[in-house]
Amino acid sequence: MVLDVWFTEKHEDMQGFSLRVNGILYSGQSKFQKIDVIDTEAFGRVLLLDGLVMTTEKDEFFYHEMISHIPLLAHPDPEKVLIVGGGDGGTIREVLRHPSVKEIILCEIDSDVIDVSRQYLPSIACKMDDPRVKIHIEDAVEYIKDKKNCFDAVLIDSTDPLGPGVGLFTEEFYTNVRNSLRENGVMSAQTESPIACQKEFKLINLLLNKVFPVVKPYFAPVPTYPGAYWSWTFCSESLQPVINNEKSAADLEKDSKYYNREIHKAVFAVPNYVKQLIASGEAVK
Amino acid sequence: MVLDVWFTEKHEDMQGFSLRVNGILYSGQSKFQKIDVIDTEAFGRVLLLDGLVMTTEKDEFFYHEMISHIPLLAHPDPEKVLIVGGGDGGTIREVLRHPSVKEIILCEIDSDVIDVSRQYLPSIACKMDDPRVKIHIEDAVEYIKDKKNCFDAVLIDSTDPLGPGVGLFTEEFYTNVRNSLRENGVMSAQTESPIACQKEFKLINLLLNKVFPVVKPYFAPVPTYPGAYWSWTFCSESLQPVINNEKSAADLEKDSKYYNREIHKAVFAVPNYVKQLIASGEAVK
Repeated sequence: MVLDVWFTEKHEDMQGFSLRVNGILYSGQSKFQKIDVIDTEAFGRVLLLDGLVMTTEKDEFFYHEMISHIPLLAHPDPEKVLIVGGGDGGTIREVLRHPSVKEIILCEIDSDVIDVSRQYLPSIACKMDDPRVKIHIEDAVEYIKDKKNCFDAVLIDSTDPLGPGVGLFTEEFYTNVRNSLRENGVMSAQTESPIACQKEFKLINLLLNKVFPVVKPYFAPVPTYPGAYWSWTFCSESLQPVINNEKSAADLEKDSKYYNREIHKAVFAVPNYVKQLIASGEAVK
Repeated sequence: MVLDVWFTEKHEDMQGFSLRVNGILYSGQSKFQKIDVIDTEAFGRVLLLDGLVMTTEKDEFFYHEMISHIPLLAHPDPEKVLIVGGGDGGTIREVLRHPSVKEIILCEIDSDVIDVSRQYLPSIACKMDDPRVKIHIEDAVEYIKDKKNCFDAVLIDSTDPLGPGVGLFTEEFYTNVRNSLRENGVMSAQTESPIACQKEFKLINLLLNKVFPVVKPYFAPVPTYPGAYWSWTFCSESLQPVINNEKSAADLEKDSKYYNREIHKAVFAVPNYVKQLIASGEAVK
């Protein structure tokens, strides 16, 4: 008989998501947060930060393809990319699939997340040693302050707006991100669930609209996140999040699990209740 | 202190979805299945059949808008509609928003589902007494057999392919549905989750492709279903699932919570792994 062990992530003490656990592979406390890796029947290995699912071997592709390919294909020729957070390495792996990219800076506050991911999530962390990648261990809130006209794309692959990630969801930080962009620069951030985290989604959209002229949320499933339906938001000074490099998009879609050019357009359709949420601030569940 | 009561729906004994329960409003055993209604903090009242979530007050709009508006707006002028299953009444409510509809036949096997929904889910069951609605208590597998050239639209609002719903997922049943359609007739069926129920999704698509010349799966979130990302499939002899009644679509989107014309197009974008799944039968999680 198999031992009946389950991990449960509760959301707002109202709903829960549970996974059958085959084993606990790592448990540690970093300077910033609790880090665990569990092995689950349904989603393979799962990285948890402060008890919340960050990424899993089986469904990480939704998230990492969405945060990378949408902004990078909206840029005609991205060369230098900043990833904020992203210590599991999944965003690095996807960004490196864009042949124009010459340099990636990963600015991650917690080196333990990187070390644990390298050891326990090799299919996700596999490209961290690529020579184009520079890993910088620092709070991105500080790192970004003096960067002007530096990056073609900034990808904010952060935790939720609590704990060490809270400073990444402020008008000041977004303004510094905007100032760090080169001409034609693009930004995408993970912006919480438009179902389970309506308040946070609305607030982040409000802040982004104060800072960027172009603000376009987009939506895709992430089965292991609260609500299982997630959002990212594309921002720029003037570029729209359409495909501005058709050849690169055609190449990328061949080996992507979620992304294709049809999906690129489709993810920007905004459900009616989300339009209302953005416009009025009223949460409709 | 609040009593710490939780409902959990387990999926394939590998993952679970839990809701905090304020109360159990109804529990009964019909001739066909166990029926329960619970009141939850996160999603309001929830209808359970054999312990599985069928619909909830707060997220039912995703499902009922998708199963109704996509096929009915692909038809230029639908008058007579058959709903298979759908005893909670949500699909009736949405179908009646189409002004061309003159008659709806609800063919539901279990009258207890209707009675319980009328009593406990008034916001969903609210239109069952409309004079255009005829309720027929019978197994749709039998009902459909002698219907030829009868309906402009058939909406298969069934449970999962187990228990009393199993006969609704067969080549014979789909063939009888096709024969029951008038010229320009359209069909939509709920076709399980392309994440959590990949085997079932693939099998149903395979069967539908044997029967209908046009088979187009479409996708949207349903937060309380396994995987939380669901599929329906549009089928017809020749009509494509585009908007064939622009005025009706423009009117409908004004008062819809999920549906709008952009969404109508977007839900037909097929993720790469789902294309592979349909083509090869290989389950990619």
